Amino acid sequence: MSQRVRIGVIGTGTLGMHHCRTLALLAPGADLALVADNRDQATRAAAALSSETSVATDYRAILNDPSIQAVVITTPNDTHAQLVREAAEAGKHIFCEKPLALDMAGADSALEAVASNSVKLQIGFQRRFDPAYREARGALLAGDLGSIELIVGTTRDPAPPPASYLERSGSFFVDTAIHDYDALRYLTGLEVTNVFATAATLILEDTRERPMKDTAVTSLRMENGALATITNSRRSNYGYDVRIEVSGSKGRLVLGEERRTAVRSYTEAGVSHDFVGSYWELFEAAYVAELRHFVQCVAEDKEPEVTGEDGRKALQIALLAERSSQEGRSLSIDELR
Amino acid sequence: MSQRVRIGVIGTGTLGMHHCRTLALLAPGADLALVADNRDQATRAAAALSSETSVATDYRAILNDPSIQAVVITTPNDTHAQLVREAAEAGKHIFCEKPLALDMAGADSALEAVASNSVKLQIGFQRRFDPAYREARGALLAGDLGSIELIVGTTRDPAPPPASYLERSGSFFVDTAIHDYDALRYLTGLEVTNVFATAATLILEDTRERPMKDTAVTSLRMENGALATITNSRRSNYGYDVRIEVSGSKGRLVLGEERRTAVRSYTEAGVSHDFVGSYWELFEAAYVAELRHFVQCVAEDKEPEVTGEDGRKALQIALLAERSSQEGRSLSIDELR
Amino acid sequence: MSQRVRIGVIGTGTLGMHHCRTLALLAPGADLALVADNRDQATRAAAALSSETSVATDYRAILNDPSIQAVVITTPNDTHAQLVREAAEAGKHIFCEKPLALDMAGADSALEAVASNSVKLQIGFQRRFDPAYREARGALLAGDLGSIELIVGTTRDPAPPPASYLERSGSFFVDTAIHDYDALRYLTGLEVTNVFATAATLILEDTRERPMKDTAVTSLRMENGALATITNSRRSNYGYDVRIEVSGSKGRLVLGEERRTAVRSYTEAGVSHDFVGSYWELFEAAYVAELRHFVQCVAEDKEPEVTGEDGRKALQIALLAERSSQEGRSLSIDELR
Amino acid sequence: MSQRVRIGVIGTGTLGMHHCRTLALLAPGADLALVADNRDQATRAAAALSSETSVATDYRAILNDPSIQAVVITTPNDTHAQLVREAAEAGKHIFCEKPLALDMAGADSALEAVASNSVKLQIGFQRRFDPAYREARGALLAGDLGSIELIVGTTRDPAPPPASYLERSGSFFVDTAIHDYDALRYLTGLEVTNVFATAATLILEDTRERPMKDTAVTSLRMENGALATITNSRRSNYGYDVRIEVSGSKGRLVLGEERRTAVRSYTEAGVSHDFVGSYWELFEAAYVAELRHFVQCVAEDKEPEVTGEDGRKALQIALLAERSSQEGRSLSIDELR
Repeated sequence: MSQRVRIGVIGTGTLGMHHCRTLALLAPGADLALVADNRDQATRAAAALSSETSVATDYRAILNDPSIQAVVITTPNDTHAQLVREAAEAGKHIFCEKPLALDMAGADSALEAVASNSVKLQIGFQRRFDPAYREARGALLAGDLGSIELIVGTTRDPAPPPASYLERSGSFFVDTAIHDYDALRYLTGLEVTNVFATAATLILEDTRERPMKDTAVTSLRMENGALATITNSRRSNYGYDVRIEVSGSKGRLVLGEERRTAVRSYTEAGVSHDFVGSYWELFEAAYVAELRHFVQCVAEDKEPEVTGEDGRKALQIALLAERSSQEGRSLSIDELR
Repeated sequence: MSQRVRIGVIGTGTLGMHHCRTLALLAPGADLALVADNRDQATRAAAALSSETSVATDYRAILNDPSIQAVVITTPNDTHAQLVREAAEAGKHIFCEKPLALDMAGADSALEAVASNSVKLQIGFQRRFDPAYREARGALLAGDLGSIELIVGTTRDPAPPPASYLERSGSFFVDTAIHDYDALRYLTGLEVTNVFATAATLILEDTRERPMKDTAVTSLRMENGALATITNSRRSNYGYDVRIEVSGSKGRLVLGEERRTAVRSYTEAGVSHDFVGSYWELFEAAYVAELRHFVQCVAEDKEPEVTGEDGRKALQIALLAERSSQEGRSLSIDELR
Repeated sequence: MSQRVRIGVIGTGTLGMHHCRTLALLAPGADLALVADNRDQATRAAAALSSETSVATDYRAILNDPSIQAVVITTPNDTHAQLVREAAEAGKHIFCEKPLALDMAGADSALEAVASNSVKLQIGFQRRFDPAYREARGALLAGDLGSIELIVGTTRDPAPPPASYLERSGSFFVDTAIHDYDALRYLTGLEVTNVFATAATLILEDTRERPMKDTAVTSLRMENGALATITNSRRSNYGYDVRIEVSGSKGRLVLGEERRTAVRSYTEAGVSHDFVGSYWELFEAAYVAELRHFVQCVAEDKEPEVTGEDGRKALQIALLAERSSQEGRSLSIDELR
Repeated sequence: MSQRVRIGVIGTGTLGMHHCRTLALLAPGADLALVADNRDQATRAAAALSSETSVATDYRAILNDPSIQAVVITTPNDTHAQLVREAAEAGKHIFCEKPLALDMAGADSALEAVASNSVKLQIGFQRRFDPAYREARGALLAGDLGSIELIVGTTRDPAPPPASYLERSGSFFVDTAIHDYDALRYLTGLEVTNVFATAATLILEDTRERPMKDTAVTSLRMENGALATITNSRRSNYGYDVRIEVSGSKGRLVLGEERRTAVRSYTEAGVSHDFVGSYWELFEAAYVAELRHFVQCVAEDKEPEVTGEDGRKALQIALLAERSSQEGRSLSIDELR
């Protein structure tokens, strides 16, 4: 049997805490060794998960601990590239939340450090570990739907995140739509060649001259000529809404869970049911599976299924979408390298 | 009670025959007086519907018959503008299938003739008479969903029409997506201000240098800043697929019937049900209702709910989409007048 | 082409008026000649449907009119058997609403009059004309689901009818569940051999010693050994709820339309849609189709698909269910002849 | 923090192995100490789950180990009562799969042993730990649906179990329908007062004079006068099908998950999706939650939510259903004590 993997987690926001819980309780073969965050309360909660878990306020405690083989990065988006670089230089295998970076220079220097230090890097595109996505990809790559022609996807958050999050998250495209861009690539096995995007500020109260966008539509063209459109919103008001449909010459595959529970109610007011409330509810199994996969890759010295290159490509699309939304024209993928 | 309305139908293709049947059997107050088509077989079938129906091979027989008050135009798209003009000049009230014309000049001269001859003109945007669309519009205009932010729509035919149809139908935007553009306007009560479109030839075998498009994505911006995306395909392979969803600050409304019958089957192969097969199946009640509305407007001297201006505006969006798909940039509605 | 059929309608309650409208407007080949009801207002409304329609307060005006070939009976349940008998003796073809009678003696004497006068009799089991039911029956009789094993059905009214209706309607089994008993026979092509029923008064405020039942469960055994259960309620509070599922050795077929329109709403309160509100909404097309079928059978001298024997067999099951619910034991079909 | 609970598992069939995995990996605070089964292969698989797990071929090894506080019984149904008694006498807390016993005498002597030895007993009615069931019960007990009037439920296995299982499982009512009887009681908070059942052998090839039943319908009356019907089948052919709906004076609640994944496919063959394949897929979270609850009750000295009395009451209904199906009459709950 493979050896146990000692892991440190940097950043204990909502998702960071979920990852800590997974590593402490649900990832056989993993030890949650050290949790670093500069907020005292968060690390205390993390440390309570397991008697073997220590805490630190400085993430360098993880990088400097030779007994720790791997690190999970769930800090604000604007720190990812730098932390990947440092972790790689410290010889740690890395699980990094999306986005890999906020610009291509950051992504490239991070990937160089990963390569030159021969560490593994997995990006947190958790949808790739959802059973429905895996099944859909299998069917699409096997040609069950024929050649791919048209894709429609969406991600909508129930409500906007706090301003403190938005300040460090990069553009709406880089922070949110990037999940859909990756799903496009994952499900179809096709690369994007052209990007047009349009965006608006309809939800956030942002009085700056160039306010953050919170509503966006991205039109894409895939390498085989297929077309795609992705819509994103910071607020659905009814729950966490993630759907994608792929049409091919033989038909259409649709992915998208709506209900949180299986209860439906029929009353004078009509028929009603609940809706998935959060990313964690919708993708709980996928979040657990991606970390188990990472632990297994480290333990068995295998390459993770979601690579740094995947992180870079999704970022590239997001940056092009951002620029396209400002220039009002369609951009070729070659216009950003 | 209002007087009976004698009506002539020009063109007896599939939809023309449906309209003949509606007028002969299902539109109280209407008499299907005369059916004109240059195909003998078609007019014979139409004439068999009622003992009071005559046939002609030349549509001018309708225009020249003073006992006929109104005309239904269901000829190829490239004849609409000219026929509307002639019918208006002959003093007939007009029900014209979409599109009103294939270019703005055609639309404008048709509308001028309608105005100067004081006849009524209703455009065949039948979705406006679907009970679900009416209910959705009512809810949206009443503010039930708050301010409108994001719209996603689609129209997909089961299979491409014959080449003979395509030759005279205008671009894919003008022939098909125009229904979605009108639905956007109808449901939200908002005008479009910007259009970007991208299109591809993935289905039709068209070896010309500039082949007809059969797959398209249109990104639009509405006057209140809301964004929209419309996808279209000439082939779904599973049926006639028309859906639209409108999201506002308070939630989302979804329209789209999938099942033809209420039978669902559960077997070893999984759970399955049928899908709506054609525009006639999906919108049968709406097609009947729009003609009843037209007959009533003529009988009671009222303005139809779907006006020539509605036909013109949807055409304008379609023409902008077509140009945008060639230029690769977003166009303002002002760039086409 | 077949000759026109002149028809009289006896009884202009809700369903009677629907039938009048169908005959006047939607049944080519039929003339609504005479409408009889002892309520003045109702007949006036019926007469307004067509300039060719006369009215009478005495139904014998229809029976005595030699120009009328057929009669539609939509009077209170306790008059059906007697009116069928009289109409048959007057030589009229008969469309009679369910139930055929309130007891077996009534049914038998009515059927004898029909037979000895060689008139046609169709019972108003309209579900047999619903496209989904027809499709399901076809699939089941073709063996698509294998041998039939288990059936679950329900009919629930939105709200109880008025006391004046209940007084003359017969038991809950005879008035309502009879639709489900017929659906059982129609869909499976199998006869019922054993009946157990239990019932309760949970909805109606009926203070008599033996109050009318409004909630019921019937367990049945079919001639091939399959089991069935039917539930009925006088009040759903959310709409008109009719569903039935048939399981066989190869799987399950489910029938049941829920939504009135195709609009779904997603808000903070969850996901919701409307529900079919009435029997007329759910079975509108079937009600029209059954009358068209009856008219056609009369015009072309064919036997109707729903016979008097079908009416008698469903009644027999209903009467057994009623008795079983009083005796607390399972009854064989042979115990009532 | 509460002390750890050392647990032994008796019986490593399919569900036993699931429980071993839950205890070893997913139940914080539990140690899977000892697994007993007389099949060598099964215990080896169980022992591989954790380095702390020992195995035995004789279950008495568990009962005799003073370091073990609790036992999970997942042996054939005909051993449950005896094992509960022995475990209670050995002072172990007990989690026992349903049914508690195959007859009332067995149930009563088991419960006496539990009481006189002051150990805890939880019965494996896992549906009570499904989030949808909990939510539905909450809504029903809060009166959201008004007073309860009509309940319809079903449990259908994808395919019959092997003959070796059936031999020791008791009747179909005791083995399968018992889940639905418990769900009835749990969801409504109401006791059953009358039972009628009918059953057939349509699936199993059982040539004995009195073959095992595999298809059944149970009609029940609840203490408040509400009616219920439960259908059961040993074979659905399409998956594991568990649904229940509860109607009250204000409307209806429906529970029942159909899809295994969120993938839907639209092709020429229609629209299709998969179906839940097994009890484990449908109730995975509930099976884990019920064991966590049991471990917690032992650790914190609390009474389990599903008691021995719950096991006894569901058994009583099942035994009455069995007898009723033989006698063809409705039985009062008082006829079996």
